[in-house]
Formats: sequence, C-alpha cells, structure tokens
Amino acid sequence: MTTAQPGPRVEAVLFDTFGTVVDWRAGVAAAVDSFAERHGLDLDGQDFALRWRARYQPSMEPVRTGAREFVSLDVLHRENLLEVLGEHGIDAGTIEPGELTWLVEAWHRLPPWPDSVTGLRRLRERALIGPLSNGNLALLARMAKNAGLPWDVVLGSDVTRAYKPQPESYLRAVSLLGLEPGEVMLAAAHNSDLHAAASAGLRTAFVARPSEFGPGQTTDLEPAGDWDLVAGDLVELADRFTGPAWSVDRRGR
Amino acid sequence: MTTAQPGPRVEAVLFDTFGTVVDWRAGVAAAVDSFAERHGLDLDGQDFALRWRARYQPSMEPVRTGAREFVSLDVLHRENLLEVLGEHGIDAGTIEPGELTWLVEAWHRLPPWPDSVTGLRRLRERALIGPLSNGNLALLARMAKNAGLPWDVVLGSDVTRAYKPQPESYLRAVSLLGLEPGEVMLAAAHNSDLHAAASAGLRTAFVARPSEFGPGQTTDLEPAGDWDLVAGDLVELADRFTGPAWSVDRRGR
Repeated sequence: MTTAQPGPRVEAVLFDTFGTVVDWRAGVAAAVDSFAERHGLDLDGQDFALRWRARYQPSMEPVRTGAREFVSLDVLHRENLLEVLGEHGIDAGTIEPGELTWLVEAWHRLPPWPDSVTGLRRLRERALIGPLSNGNLALLARMAKNAGLPWDVVLGSDVTRAYKPQPESYLRAVSLLGLEPGEVMLAAAHNSDLHAAASAGLRTAFVARPSEFGPGQTTDLEPAGDWDLVAGDLVELADRFTGPAWSVDRRGR
Repeated sequence: MTTAQPGPRVEAVLFDTFGTVVDWRAGVAAAVDSFAERHGLDLDGQDFALRWRARYQPSMEPVRTGAREFVSLDVLHRENLLEVLGEHGIDAGTIEPGELTWLVEAWHRLPPWPDSVTGLRRLRERALIGPLSNGNLALLARMAKNAGLPWDVVLGSDVTRAYKPQPESYLRAVSLLGLEPGEVMLAAAHNSDLHAAASAGLRTAFVARPSEFGPGQTTDLEPAGDWDLVAGDLVELADRFTGPAWSVDRRGR
C-alpha cells in the first residue's frame, strides 16, 4: 500500500506505545490490585488505572508550555500516583519508598496486546521500527525487554526533550534516524497523535484499540483523518505495509 | 563473577562497538574495494581502511574540546573520507554524491565478529545491553539491524552529545537508563576506553580483539588495568557474566 502512494519510501515506522502497543489499563490495574492486597488497602485496580492515566496529559502540559523544565515521565507518573493515592485517603509517606517505586514501575511492566509482538516482528522485515512515545528511555527499554517488543531502536521523550504532540517530539526523532519526515510513519491508536505527526510531515497509520479505556470507550473508535494506512491490529498493519525487505544498502533507491 | 564482587548488581552492559563488536577493517576494506572496482580506481581496501580510521580520533578532538560544535560521526566520516581520497589524488567532486554516501555508510554495514551475535544473545538473558559508541544513533541502529545485533537499546553519541572518553558520554548514557554508574558495565577491546569508564564509576570488561588493526597490531593485546571481567570474546564474556536472569521487577534487590 505505501509503495503505491506518492512520496519517498517509508524507511522507519515508529509507534505510539501506551494503548497502541501495550495495554496500560490491564497492566496498571493488576499492579494496583497486587499492591492493595499486600498493604491491606481497599482499591479498585481498574478504576485506579483510569484515574492515574487521567492525570497523564495535564501533567505534561507545563513542560510543553515551558512553564516547567523537562522532567521524565517516571517523575510525572510518581507525582500523579501520590495524588491519586491522596484521593483515596492514603498518605504516601506511610508507604515504603521501594513499594512506591515498584508501583510507578508498573508502567515499565505493561503487557503487549495479543497481536503486538507478532505484528512488530513481521513489520521489522520491511522497516526500521521503534517507539515514539512520551515514555522515557529507561521505561521504554525495560518495557520492551520484558514484553518482548523487537524494536530496532528506542527513542524516549527524554532523548527528544519534548512531549507529543509538540512538533519537536516527532522531528527530533526523525532527525536522529537520519531520515526525512516523509520517510517515517507514525502508527497510533489516537487520531490526535496522527494529526500532529501529519502536520510535522510524517506518514500515518491508524490502529484501532477500541477497548484501551475499557468497555465504555467512546473516542478513537474509528480513523478520523486521511491516514496513509488503517489497520485493526499490528498484524494487519504489517501485512498492509508492503514493499521490499528493509536493507541497510540505500544505493539505487 | 560479577555477583561475587562487592557493589550493586550490574543491570546493563554497554559495548564499545567499532572493533569490539564489529570488524570495521574488514567491512570498510570490502566497501572500498567494491567502490574502486566500480570507478576504475587503484585503491587498496585494507590500507584505505586503516588510513580512514587513523583520522577518527583526531577528527573528534575539536568537538571534545568545544572548539567545534557537536557534529555526528557520519559527518566526520565523510570529511575524513574526502581527505583520504585526496591523499590518493582523487577529487571527490568528480564522484556522484550518492556513491560517496554509500561509501560513508560502509560504517553502517560493518560485519560482526563471529562470536558477537551469539555472545550478545546469551548476555541479553542476564542484562540489558546496548552500544556505547562514538557512532551516531542512525549509524548504530542500521548497523545493528543489518548485522543482527540484538540490542535492547541504542544510545548514540548524538544522544549524549559527547564523544568518548569524555565523562559525559558514559554518565549521560547511565542516566538515560535510569541507573547508577556502578550498575552499568562497559565492555571494550580498548584499555583507554575502560580507564575512562572506570573513572566515571562504571564497571569494566575487557574483550581481546588482537586482529582489529591487522596482523601487525601491537596495542590492546592484553588487559592493562584491574578490570572486573576479562574475556577472549563475547561468548566467553556472556558465560563469565553470572547471576540471575534479568527481570523488569526490581523489588527485593
């Protein structure tokens, strides 16, 4: 499909990670349930995960505007966790620091969607692949190693020093790969992310993840833009991404 | 061996790349010979490779001292190539730019030593692994994909914005991994690299590569420091690196 379209060959496909490649809701809920059981706390893991994630976008906003110096997502996740614990009447000061770190690092241990590893392995034959996520490099590297995500390269938001949808987050990643924006495709389950990537000149692939936020999800059920590629999961994405095998030798392209 | 020593557990092993993991001399010589044949030039690939590499350290020096703004190794490789071509009486202006780029990218296509892929695969079970090289990210990512190097993470000198042996090159890599210097080991075939890493607080592993510079090599034939680990190749390194399997769950360590 991509080769049939005008424009340069797509050399690299970068992925939104939380929600697109891994199921953050299931992973965080399981960690919270385990944490609650060990500490004799009454917490609903699923509800807690949604509340923790709801603070994600607002917590990055001061960094995006420049009101706050860049801090990594691990730092924001910890701050947001303390707030959600507070909402539940739990004083984080009473909890052993190592236990809090373990809970913050639930985001390092997120499970892939069932199709993710197979799809990425297949796509890797035709393109260089990696995450383009708001996660920091340590988080993404540890997640990948644990979940078996076969990335060629791991680019964290602490490498680009920018949070999506800031244009720099896309363009610095493209530049580090030594490519032009039109040679890179972003794959994401979120239309807003794809809009920002397209504005920066990248190619786009929408992957539906209709249960990311649970059974009541109302957003991002369908593609809402003229994306280069649309797929139901990462295996379908890999199969729709046709063209020659990836080669380190660019002569003659 | 490492677990029997005092200090924290080694979570990550980072590798010098040119000479330690890949055979730059063979890869560059083959590309030069192919280039010479296509262009009807009289060049000795082996000799050319050594001359090109001889300009490597001097070309980074102005960047290290701050006399020159950071430029990537791809840029330095190109500048150094033009000089070596000039030494041979070849005006690079007469050569198609795509052909020059192809030759610069010989450094993206370097072959691994025969033990490298097996050793890295084995070590990867017990530690997070990646390059810590003066190569830029695009170079290292493409080299890894082509050579089958199973890195968990790829850190380029254009990510740390420093060239070894600057302390920042080691310490920024450690920091991006979310680790302390004592939790990271540098593996290298060059004693000077290990000295600098040890001074920055990292653990060290020496891997002998006695034919890196050809049959007449006189340097780095033996370890010249009190390194934590010494191995004849990367398979031996992996086998000497004992301890539990790597786990994303750091609770209880």
